[in-house]
Amino acid sequence: MRTRVTELFGIEYPIFAFSHCRDVVAAVSRAGGMGVLGALYFTPEELELELKWIDEHVGGRPYGVDVVMPAKYEGADLGDAGDLVARLQGMIPEGHKRFLEELLAEHGVEPLGEEGAGKVLLGWTDATARPQVEVALKHPIALLANALGPPPADVVAQAHEHGVKVAGLASNARHARKQVEVGVDIIVAQGTEAGGHTGDVSTMVLIPEVVDAVGADTMVLAAGGIGRGRQMAAGMALGADGVWTGSVWLTVDEADTPEKARAKLLEATSRDTVRSRSWTGKPARLLKTAWTDAWESERSPGTLPMPMQFMLISDALRRIGRSGDGELTTFPVGQIVGSMNQVKPAAQVVYDLIEEYVEALDRLNAITGAD
Amino acid sequence: MRTRVTELFGIEYPIFAFSHCRDVVAAVSRAGGMGVLGALYFTPEELELELKWIDEHVGGRPYGVDVVMPAKYEGADLGDAGDLVARLQGMIPEGHKRFLEELLAEHGVEPLGEEGAGKVLLGWTDATARPQVEVALKHPIALLANALGPPPADVVAQAHEHGVKVAGLASNARHARKQVEVGVDIIVAQGTEAGGHTGDVSTMVLIPEVVDAVGADTMVLAAGGIGRGRQMAAGMALGADGVWTGSVWLTVDEADTPEKARAKLLEATSRDTVRSRSWTGKPARLLKTAWTDAWESERSPGTLPMPMQFMLISDALRRIGRSGDGELTTFPVGQIVGSMNQVKPAAQVVYDLIEEYVEALDRLNAITGAD
Repeated sequence: MRTRVTELFGIEYPIFAFSHCRDVVAAVSRAGGMGVLGALYFTPEELELELKWIDEHVGGRPYGVDVVMPAKYEGADLGDAGDLVARLQGMIPEGHKRFLEELLAEHGVEPLGEEGAGKVLLGWTDATARPQVEVALKHPIALLANALGPPPADVVAQAHEHGVKVAGLASNARHARKQVEVGVDIIVAQGTEAGGHTGDVSTMVLIPEVVDAVGADTMVLAAGGIGRGRQMAAGMALGADGVWTGSVWLTVDEADTPEKARAKLLEATSRDTVRSRSWTGKPARLLKTAWTDAWESERSPGTLPMPMQFMLISDALRRIGRSGDGELTTFPVGQIVGSMNQVKPAAQVVYDLIEEYVEALDRLNAITGAD
Repeated sequence: MRTRVTELFGIEYPIFAFSHCRDVVAAVSRAGGMGVLGALYFTPEELELELKWIDEHVGGRPYGVDVVMPAKYEGADLGDAGDLVARLQGMIPEGHKRFLEELLAEHGVEPLGEEGAGKVLLGWTDATARPQVEVALKHPIALLANALGPPPADVVAQAHEHGVKVAGLASNARHARKQVEVGVDIIVAQGTEAGGHTGDVSTMVLIPEVVDAVGADTMVLAAGGIGRGRQMAAGMALGADGVWTGSVWLTVDEADTPEKARAKLLEATSRDTVRSRSWTGKPARLLKTAWTDAWESERSPGTLPMPMQFMLISDALRRIGRSGDGELTTFPVGQIVGSMNQVKPAAQVVYDLIEEYVEALDRLNAITGAD
C-alpha cells in the first residue's frame, strides 16, 4: 500500500498501533505497520529501558513514542515536578477519599501490602512529560505523538531538529487547526467511539471535517472504532492517509494487559463502554463497570480535575487489580471492544486488517465496476 | 452502481432519503435514489393526500413510507385510539406542565391563538400507526420502514402480501437479529451520530457488527453520519448494501423545515447536537439549544415516557416556532449538521454524493494500485 504516511516513514501498511506494551510496539512495526509506545506510565528511567528494548527488538523498523502534554491541567502554575505531587495531593478533598474507600470496601478490595503507594502523577503534566521527550529523542524514533491538545511549540521544534515527525490527537476540526499552527505534521483525528480520552464527534463525521480543515499539506490518521479491515477501508475512504488503532492491541498475545481486565475486554460488547471522567478527570471512554457506575451515582462526590483524579485513584486501581470481587475492574477501551473476542499475535491482527481491507475494496469495485 | 438494494428496487444509486417532506421524497427518487416519507406527523387522511401527491410527482420511480411502531410505550395496554389521548393526557403531571410554561415565559414565547391545540399523539403507537400502514399499502410504495424496534409480525406479513419490502431501524446487533426473526428484509443500522432516535454505538463500529450478525441473506443500510460521498463510500466499505440518510435533506431547497430551525441547522457545527429524551421520551439526537439544556438542568422535572413527553411539548413546539427569542428552537438532527452549510436542490445533493463517492473510490484504488 502506498499513502503519504507509508512513503514518509517507509512502512508497508498505514497502520499505527498505540500501545503501552513494548512487545506490541515492536511486533506491529516488524509486521509492516508502526508501533507507538505510550510513555504515560513510565518514569524517564523506565522509558529509557523500554526504548532500549524496542531498539533491540524492532529489527530496524520505524516506531514512535506517545506522550501526554495536556494544554490545560490543575497545578500547571505550581512549578516543577519537585514537590508538585505533594502540593497537588494536598488539594484532594477528604470526602473523595472517603467515597473511594467505602466503594472499595463494598467490593472486598484490600489495602496494598508492604510495597506501599505507587506512582501517582504520571506523565501528564508539562513538568513530567518533558523529561520523557528528552529520553525519547535520544532513541531512533520516527514519530513523537501528543494527546490532549497541541504540544508546546518548542517541543515540536525540538523533535523536528532531531528529524522526528510530530503527530497530535484531535477530536474536532478547531483543535486540529490549532495543532497545524504549532507545526504538527500529522493529525490523529479521533472519534468519540475511541478508547481513552475522546471527544463527542464520531469518526464518520469527524474525519472529512478534519481533512478539509487542515488542508492538503497535513496528513490525517483516522482513529476511533477501527479494529477490522472494513473499518480501515472506511477510514481511508473518509479521506485519511492511514489509521491509528489502540484498543485492539489490548487483547493480543503480546499485551501485558492485567488478566482481570483482559478477561472483561474479551467478553464485552460494543455497548459496554462509557465516556467517564472517573479515570483522569477528563472524559475518557472506559469499560462500563461498577466503577464507572459508582462515579455517576447519586452518592458520587463528582470527579476531580486532571491530574488529581488519577492521583486519587492510582493506588485504588492497583488494589482492584489484586483483590476484590472484580466488579470494579475497568480499563480505557473503545467501542471496538465488541469485536475483540479472540487472542491473536499482534502480527496476525495486522495481516487480518489488510486481508479484510482488500476484500472491502474488491467489494467496492464490484459495485461500480458492474455498472 | 449495482448492489443488492439497487437490483431489488431498480434504483440507480443505493441512497435512501428519509424525509417528512413529500417534495424531498419525490425529488430524491427522481434523481435515482429512493425517497422515504416519514408518516409520523400525518393523520391517515393527511397521509393519503401526501402519497397521492407523491404518486403524481415521482415519475414512476420507487419510493417508501416510514412509520413508527415502537416495541414499547406507555399506554400500550390502554386500547385503541378512541380516547387514548385523553387517558394519556390525564397521566401527565402538573409539575411538568408548570416547568414547561415557566421555560416558555422566560423566552418570551406566547400562547397559541384561536386555532387552538394541535395534534398531540402522532403515529407512534400501535393504534395510530396501523391506520397509516393501511393507507400506505394502498399506494404503489416499494418499501415500508419501521423505527424503534421490530414491527409487529402481522404488519410485516401484510406488507409482503402487497409485494412491499420491509426495513427496520436498529441501533445494535441484538435488535437487528430480532428484526430478521420477524421477517424484516432490510436492516437500517443506525449509529449514535444519527439524528432522531438513536442508540449509543457509532456507525463505524455498528455496521460490520450488524452485517455479520444478520448473515448473508439480509441487506443492511448504513445510517448515521452520512451526508457526503466520502461517508457513503465509508458506509459501503463497512459492508453495507446502501446508505440511509436523513439530516442532509432538512436544508435542501425543497425542504419544509421551519425557517428558524433551518437557519440554526445551517449555522451549527458537528458538536452542536446532543442525545436527549426531551423530544419524545426516548433518546433522540437533537440540536443542542436552550431547550435541551433546560431539560438537563437541575430544575428539570425529568422527561416523561413515550408518547407522553411529546404530548406534553407538542403545542409548546408550535408556539416556539411562532414567537419568542428563538433560543428554544431545536430540531432532531445528526452530527452531520456540521457539513450542512449550503442550501441546494435535493437532486444536487444526490449528484454530489455520487461524485465524491467516485473520488473516494479512485483514491482508495490509487493506494493499493501503486503498490
